[in-house]
Amino acid sequence: MNKETLQQVHNRVKPYIHSTPILTSYLINEIVGASVYFKCENFQKMGAFKMRGATNALLSLSDEQKEKGVVTHSSGNFAQAIALAAKQLGVKTYIVMPENAPQSKKDAVEAYEGNIIVCESTAIAREQIAEKIRKEKKATFIHPSNDLEVIFGQGTAAIELLEEEPNLDYIVTPVGGGGLIAGTCLAAKYFSENCKVIGGEPMNADDAYRSLKSGKIEYNDTVNTIADGLRTFLGDQNFPIIKEHVERIIRVEEDEIIHAMKLIWERMKIIIEPSSAVAFAALLKEKDTFTTKKVGVIISGGNVDLVNLPFAR
Amino acid sequence: MNKETLQQVHNRVKPYIHSTPILTSYLINEIVGASVYFKCENFQKMGAFKMRGATNALLSLSDEQKEKGVVTHSSGNFAQAIALAAKQLGVKTYIVMPENAPQSKKDAVEAYEGNIIVCESTAIAREQIAEKIRKEKKATFIHPSNDLEVIFGQGTAAIELLEEEPNLDYIVTPVGGGGLIAGTCLAAKYFSENCKVIGGEPMNADDAYRSLKSGKIEYNDTVNTIADGLRTFLGDQNFPIIKEHVERIIRVEEDEIIHAMKLIWERMKIIIEPSSAVAFAALLKEKDTFTTKKVGVIISGGNVDLVNLPFAR
Repeated sequence: MNKETLQQVHNRVKPYIHSTPILTSYLINEIVGASVYFKCENFQKMGAFKMRGATNALLSLSDEQKEKGVVTHSSGNFAQAIALAAKQLGVKTYIVMPENAPQSKKDAVEAYEGNIIVCESTAIAREQIAEKIRKEKKATFIHPSNDLEVIFGQGTAAIELLEEEPNLDYIVTPVGGGGLIAGTCLAAKYFSENCKVIGGEPMNADDAYRSLKSGKIEYNDTVNTIADGLRTFLGDQNFPIIKEHVERIIRVEEDEIIHAMKLIWERMKIIIEPSSAVAFAALLKEKDTFTTKKVGVIISGGNVDLVNLPFAR
Repeated sequence: MNKETLQQVHNRVKPYIHSTPILTSYLINEIVGASVYFKCENFQKMGAFKMRGATNALLSLSDEQKEKGVVTHSSGNFAQAIALAAKQLGVKTYIVMPENAPQSKKDAVEAYEGNIIVCESTAIAREQIAEKIRKEKKATFIHPSNDLEVIFGQGTAAIELLEEEPNLDYIVTPVGGGGLIAGTCLAAKYFSENCKVIGGEPMNADDAYRSLKSGKIEYNDTVNTIADGLRTFLGDQNFPIIKEHVERIIRVEEDEIIHAMKLIWERMKIIIEPSSAVAFAALLKEKDTFTTKKVGVIISGGNVDLVNLPFAR
């Protein structure tokens, strides 16, 4: 792993992804007391950064692997990402989705001609069905977050952010399965002088926070959080990177996530999903860390079920 | 009135406004069958194009007028625009708002230190109270749409659009009080070769459509539309411009407005208000007019009450 590897990844995924805009807001800078640069992956193809990792994973396959197809499991954005990346690259897909996945995400996967296999809503059920398909179809399994090619791909968002803003003091990302933050760590290591990476995580699914404390991968007994993209846990590929490079993880409550989300919708007029709001909520929660600093925030995605929003009176 | 006048207006408002981005969407171009350029005034300061006209109107005042202050009436965006423009330029304000104005808009006016006077929710009540204040305080009345300086200011959005996309065949704007579309007509006349201007209007508040038919200013008996910015009517300053230059007005139903709004939220991940969706709904309604054309759409604003959205299951 070195800078050239990551640069090559960026070069090869570029034609298939959007180089998303970086937005700033005077009002939000006032509120945080820092200069905040939002890398808007909600404007990415299919609406989330996952497009980057999925594309890179498919581009790393041999022709034979592409023909036999790929299998993955995801409740949402990674399913859409694999479906669209596979459509762009002509790869067959088997996408295992839990029966309780949001309808809007299932619809989107189908719009991208992804081949959905519905399963029960447990981590074990997903993995078992994916494994069965892998064996039967000789398909290549691509994990949504615990796969080095996926991690490298996710890191390209931070590369673009650092290309435009090379002097960032921090990049803050949400932490779910760990792919985005691990990729961001590698980008910060090789494409900045001294940019630190901090994670935001829901208090109600704080497995990564506890994993950094205990030094081994921890799990969540329950995942009662609106940040549906962050209910997963770390893996053996991304945890070593996270353990070595992540400065720390800031945990936020559900009301803090909703407040942060509403603030961005209202002030910036952009649609971000609750998982993205977790990173910004971390800034709001620990302003002292960020005062007067230059802070990049990765807005991970904008796929929200508009008929089921958390903004109650 | 000539090109130089408009250019001077643009030059003098520029330091006080955002030069908003122009966004495109592959998916939306596919749906419409045209190349659509969205001029995103939802990203304008205070969240709407009204900032342009309000700023220009205040910049045209004498020092004495600035000191005595300005009075206006508005249920929403123009109230915010005058408040913020006046704050930037150090002008005293008297802002008459109907008691049923959305709370989010009243809060925003107060956040910009605007001086609100609440009145009954009728057009007559608004005007009477504004007139009373004008006399008592010797303040200058600024109409939200029927004022030439306001109209010229609103036209600067289309100037910026045509600077970036000089070969537009059409610009489509929503039609409320007529300030935006009149200003857009002047911009199209002086800053393009042959760009036509089309209006979008709610069927349930189609006064401008009927005014163009009858040749005189018509009014609405009822204004039962979600597009709360478009419930007003034309005036003697903007109607002559509209009558001379507007190609035609396309009327859209309430469900078409909501569908258009949802499409932009979901596909483009930006927050637009129902009034803005009316212009895009007009494109969707009469696709034949726009097929293969280059079409600019002015996204007039993004100020939405997030706790009261129209996206029902």
